[in-house]
Amino acid sequence: MAAFRMSLFRPAIDALDGYVPGEQPDQRDVVKLNTNENAYPPSPRALEALRAIDAELLRRYPHPAADEFRQSAATVLGVEPGWILAGNGSDDLLTMLMRAVAAPGRAVAYPVPTYVLYRTLAAMQEAPVVEVPFDDAYALPVDALACAAAELTIVANPNSPSGTAAPPDALEALAAQLDGVLVVDEAYAEFADRTALDLVRRSDRVVVLRTLSKSHGLAGLRLGYAVAQPRLLAGLAKVKDSYNVDAVAARVGAAAMRDVDHTRGTVARIREARSRLAAALAGLGFHVWPSQANFLLARPPGGDARRLYDGLRSRGILVRYFDEPRLADALRITVGTEAQNERLTGTLAALMRPRPS
Amino acid sequence: MAAFRMSLFRPAIDALDGYVPGEQPDQRDVVKLNTNENAYPPSPRALEALRAIDAELLRRYPHPAADEFRQSAATVLGVEPGWILAGNGSDDLLTMLMRAVAAPGRAVAYPVPTYVLYRTLAAMQEAPVVEVPFDDAYALPVDALACAAAELTIVANPNSPSGTAAPPDALEALAAQLDGVLVVDEAYAEFADRTALDLVRRSDRVVVLRTLSKSHGLAGLRLGYAVAQPRLLAGLAKVKDSYNVDAVAARVGAAAMRDVDHTRGTVARIREARSRLAAALAGLGFHVWPSQANFLLARPPGGDARRLYDGLRSRGILVRYFDEPRLADALRITVGTEAQNERLTGTLAALMRPRPS
Repeated sequence: MAAFRMSLFRPAIDALDGYVPGEQPDQRDVVKLNTNENAYPPSPRALEALRAIDAELLRRYPHPAADEFRQSAATVLGVEPGWILAGNGSDDLLTMLMRAVAAPGRAVAYPVPTYVLYRTLAAMQEAPVVEVPFDDAYALPVDALACAAAELTIVANPNSPSGTAAPPDALEALAAQLDGVLVVDEAYAEFADRTALDLVRRSDRVVVLRTLSKSHGLAGLRLGYAVAQPRLLAGLAKVKDSYNVDAVAARVGAAAMRDVDHTRGTVARIREARSRLAAALAGLGFHVWPSQANFLLARPPGGDARRLYDGLRSRGILVRYFDEPRLADALRITVGTEAQNERLTGTLAALMRPRPS
Repeated sequence: MAAFRMSLFRPAIDALDGYVPGEQPDQRDVVKLNTNENAYPPSPRALEALRAIDAELLRRYPHPAADEFRQSAATVLGVEPGWILAGNGSDDLLTMLMRAVAAPGRAVAYPVPTYVLYRTLAAMQEAPVVEVPFDDAYALPVDALACAAAELTIVANPNSPSGTAAPPDALEALAAQLDGVLVVDEAYAEFADRTALDLVRRSDRVVVLRTLSKSHGLAGLRLGYAVAQPRLLAGLAKVKDSYNVDAVAARVGAAAMRDVDHTRGTVARIREARSRLAAALAGLGFHVWPSQANFLLARPPGGDARRLYDGLRSRGILVRYFDEPRLADALRITVGTEAQNERLTGTLAALMRPRPS
């Protein structure tokens, strides 16, 4: 019988490779510029909130809607709490969107290259996928995305791994042409000049996603949120886990949100460092796409990215390499501290120096 | 156009009411016996681990498989770490099981009344559902569940809201007859005399679910785990969020797991209190089902449950009332501290006293 046993899983799951996240080494002494964490620690207020947590908060179930966090986020953004839905990271919110909207016969569209998880989640739903290529400048393909007329359209803005950002009027033009849901995944928006948050007021089909992983230095906490009109969020809430955000994340995240000065300060430092790092890489002959995020996509002269990735890795510096069409000749490099960035560029310079013949 | 607009969501989602969790009041002065939290706080080791967390753990992404927790759980259970998959609460693991296995044409079966989330999650997958009724003694309907031949069969054991438990040999007989996945949801197993953990060694289709919410007093932390053979867990891992368990939960949960003496001590106190509370309720004329969990299902004389629920509520005591067939004449009461249980039975006695005519 065993030889004939069918798989235990749905065929779509058997066919799936599963999303492979970036490497998370246990050691703390690597220069970790591969998964776009904030170069700086979270707000001291967040740490204080963590240390003040008592046993009773752990013993009881959390508030199902993470109200403490939602209230803080609403205050900072200037919206009503009912316009915010918290998630266990913004990946959790992407999962909710896919489960609520995508299905066989209900398509998902997005420009590529972009965050690979969109493809994985759509495959789990067995939804048709329309992948519209960016041009080499990563201009948003508004008309092609509108033509796809998908039930769910996703734009990472700023985009990963390019770091580039579409202007709000391009997103507005796209939203105006779509009948389905438009998700603007703003995981990196705090590092950008502009945001699409205003679009949410003008369209009941737009969802903006945010995360505290990058801007607030809290990748370990798993906390993100969606901003949209309450009727849209009510549909998403139907597919969320009852207690998807734990009591610790809600409390610590609320404290981090309220410390606006801390976020502003670290974001400003990273934006300055981003300019200097981009200039240094350009000085080494890299093509660097204009970034609005806390990382840079950079193509070394000759496209010799794989060798540089390996060389950096063996010297204790992790950056991200995507062995994929259009990306295999480039590196995605998180903007680190000044010291980390200098170690990176110094090591790159050494790796790129012509060997004595 | 607006009048004709189709829904933004899948029809199955529009049709869904969504799972409504038990009430989680913000006030701390209520006697909260409605959602089966542990009556006692978590291990002091867990609190120490929480307080010792530094900014770097929050800044970085967590380990994708929550290895720190997985290692501790494996040691305590005496299995290899590869036999454990951690989840953001055991609800997260139920979601993974449903997404990996259930679909149109791939059925889900379970005995009822039971945890209502099974129905909600199956509906999200548009999977056919076979609900097999328990008899009034809540004996496991092994043959009827086997006849259903579902791709996914779920047995909450001990069951909620009855508190009753099927013996391991009944579960083994069921597993032997099924070709699909059998989930034994052991959310309350630490309060029971026996567990089905051994079954996992003998069958590559059995998954045992556990949670730290009840036994370890950590409902606020959101941490559960599945125990199964590695090949089965590999399929589930494909549909899990990349970083479903945050770094705080992994660290605090690991410390709580390792403090076996603390868990044993609080569980013993709750089991003793359960016996006394059951006797006190029987003394008031209640029918009390034999419980292996940290709660009791109890039917008042005359089935006047709704009035008692309201009466308790207005006096600051929350218990669970299910306005559903077969349950509307009973209350589900979490076993609290001795003081809470005495306040509950005293208040019930007052509410049940014949009024002067």
